[in-house]
Amino acid sequence: MNVVAAPDIVVAELGGKARAAARRLAEATTEAKSRALREAAAALRAAEAAILQANAGDLADAQDMGPARVDRLRLTPARVEAMAAAVEAVAGLPDPVGEVIARWTRPNGLVIERVRIPIGVVGIVYESRPNVTADAAALCLMSGNAAILRPGSESFRSAQAIHRAFVGGLAAAGLPAEAVQLLPSADRALVGALLRAEGAIDLVVPRGGRSLVERVQREARVPVLGHLEGLCHTYIDQAADLAMASDVVFNAKMRRTGICGATETLLVDRAIAHRVGPILGRLLDAGCELRVTPDLLPLDPRLKPARPEDWDTEYLDAILSVATVDGVEGAIAHIAAHGSGHTDAIITEDAATAERFLARVDSAIVMWNASTQFADGGEFGFGAEIGIATGRLHARGPVALEGLTTYKYVVRGSGQVRPG
Amino acid sequence: MNVVAAPDIVVAELGGKARAAARRLAEATTEAKSRALREAAAALRAAEAAILQANAGDLADAQDMGPARVDRLRLTPARVEAMAAAVEAVAGLPDPVGEVIARWTRPNGLVIERVRIPIGVVGIVYESRPNVTADAAALCLMSGNAAILRPGSESFRSAQAIHRAFVGGLAAAGLPAEAVQLLPSADRALVGALLRAEGAIDLVVPRGGRSLVERVQREARVPVLGHLEGLCHTYIDQAADLAMASDVVFNAKMRRTGICGATETLLVDRAIAHRVGPILGRLLDAGCELRVTPDLLPLDPRLKPARPEDWDTEYLDAILSVATVDGVEGAIAHIAAHGSGHTDAIITEDAATAERFLARVDSAIVMWNASTQFADGGEFGFGAEIGIATGRLHARGPVALEGLTTYKYVVRGSGQVRPG
Repeated sequence: MNVVAAPDIVVAELGGKARAAARRLAEATTEAKSRALREAAAALRAAEAAILQANAGDLADAQDMGPARVDRLRLTPARVEAMAAAVEAVAGLPDPVGEVIARWTRPNGLVIERVRIPIGVVGIVYESRPNVTADAAALCLMSGNAAILRPGSESFRSAQAIHRAFVGGLAAAGLPAEAVQLLPSADRALVGALLRAEGAIDLVVPRGGRSLVERVQREARVPVLGHLEGLCHTYIDQAADLAMASDVVFNAKMRRTGICGATETLLVDRAIAHRVGPILGRLLDAGCELRVTPDLLPLDPRLKPARPEDWDTEYLDAILSVATVDGVEGAIAHIAAHGSGHTDAIITEDAATAERFLARVDSAIVMWNASTQFADGGEFGFGAEIGIATGRLHARGPVALEGLTTYKYVVRGSGQVRPG
Repeated sequence: MNVVAAPDIVVAELGGKARAAARRLAEATTEAKSRALREAAAALRAAEAAILQANAGDLADAQDMGPARVDRLRLTPARVEAMAAAVEAVAGLPDPVGEVIARWTRPNGLVIERVRIPIGVVGIVYESRPNVTADAAALCLMSGNAAILRPGSESFRSAQAIHRAFVGGLAAAGLPAEAVQLLPSADRALVGALLRAEGAIDLVVPRGGRSLVERVQREARVPVLGHLEGLCHTYIDQAADLAMASDVVFNAKMRRTGICGATETLLVDRAIAHRVGPILGRLLDAGCELRVTPDLLPLDPRLKPARPEDWDTEYLDAILSVATVDGVEGAIAHIAAHGSGHTDAIITEDAATAERFLARVDSAIVMWNASTQFADGGEFGFGAEIGIATGRLHARGPVALEGLTTYKYVVRGSGQVRPG
């Protein structure tokens, strides 16, 4: 990896170019932004061979990584096509910029509008999945933001090849190439400089594992939008339809175990603990390890006792901790103590109980009779997502085009002066 | 001042009580919150003598402060009544909590709602004006947030007396007293602990001078909403109605010179520089010092030459810097180089020029043919404000009840599982 001599200067220079590009992007028409994305998608398809060759270089250096990470890193013709299709999908989304969110007239005749505008310059710090380069660039571009991308060192060559396609798309649409920039190397000092670049970078979005997000949150002097982990719960209430509960819980845990919306802890109303044997058996049959409170152990010889740390562990694997609780109040208390504010669900046929859960669980997403794996921008109808935010400010849950905007107040008068 | 031995422990304890209170406040009815505020207003009126006595104690210690600060600190029967009336006004505002901001149904039948909720625990760090205690407490309470107040050391006794009235109001409405807490002393170490209290404090709002806000922004590990300064501009375009320009500029500078929405720099289109003599003369006649670019000096012998630092100075006084610029593009460039992102205005009869200015000036508030002194939550129709935000995320411009909320997604299903 190239080591950069003066990371703050490098980032300041990139940031300056990004700011100038952001000013032009903020005024770009929807048509120009869509065209740039369609051209970028075409360029991605045309560059398939070059992208796969760059990816082969990354893969050759990735021998030490586990199979899951190698799979995340690997590109195929189908994955390049999926990446291009995703960029085209973003090109077809409604443009959030310029939307008048609210408008009112004051008694003195002033007309006040709250108008949606881009945030400005967005840094994205991510890990091995090369498609993040295309997704993040497309979402930033369509929402009028300049992007500064910092891919993981293991996917740097793939990211460079994908980035080249975007630069081509921008040029074809008459938009500045500096609207989407890549840090010149994967040197970690450059990430530090990016996180310190107050004034130059308006927002940093970390996408990756817990250690990456923790580092970004710890070091950042610029605002950060992201989530540390998804310790999602599903609670089966005594008034649940147990057949539905079985299907929903199975999907919430097993559809994909490695995503942040996967359920990590199942909570069971103590009143029906003796009836959930089949639900647990189905998970065990599918190879899921279950770590349970002592009262559940007699239900199946394959159950293991949970340790205290299990309630605070995001497995991202075929492991589920299971606790009995005293009704919906017990579930709410368990989630308040151990949840990560990401996504939590209740299974019940009792509407009053459901509404109590939905009102009192303080997570970005709360669900009733649905799988926590629906925690996703695409599933919400946003077309894509740049991540899922679990902080309390600006944007929560799946963040897509709208979450990448802010607003300003536009006040139109006829010479009003303020009395008093 | 009391020095606190273990500031982090003190803040953690206050924060824990605030969190518990915030959970109860989040579920409180509009009626309960309104009643608490009306009771607090009544308690403020009933405690007028005690509040004035506490204030007299603060004033006795404030001999070294300048007259402007002493005036900000001073309470009178009329000011206590105004404080009570403001609390009652907030009690009558629409409750933002629970508002369904958006609602849609997915093809699979999931019904998704974005619902407004309180942020949680809000810290307010402020200086000498005792009414901030009442305003901030009222806005936080009505928006369902627990407040931890840290008044300036010079107003601490006044703040304690006002706080007691709030505690009485909360009790009368059956809400937890810990919903509005005061730090136990003005010890600066407690502010540091508050700013470090990640997880316990969800948001800090600094209200005060530049040095206070800079300290909060520098030290905070928790999110901050505020503004460093209001370096507001008014631009007189060649197509301006000069009589309107004279009235608007005079008001924008001279109505109150010490507020953040006061215009600090006047920009004049070079094409009409020879015609603004009367506008400048009116300001000079009113005792305003004018620091101008060399080309304007011949207009009036009382004009002084501007130094380079004048373009970056927030005077908060009867001083105005005046620069000629090359049309609206020159004005936009000057504001981009020297503005603080607060409020900037154009005076013109040309709608196309106005719209270019409104679109391209990247401030929280942009105005056409109106005084920058309208930058105020009350003037916007928000009833009150906790401050004016110039950052780019979460809330910008005047921040009131809505800016003190966030949202969550509530998803209601009928057993949906995610395919694929």
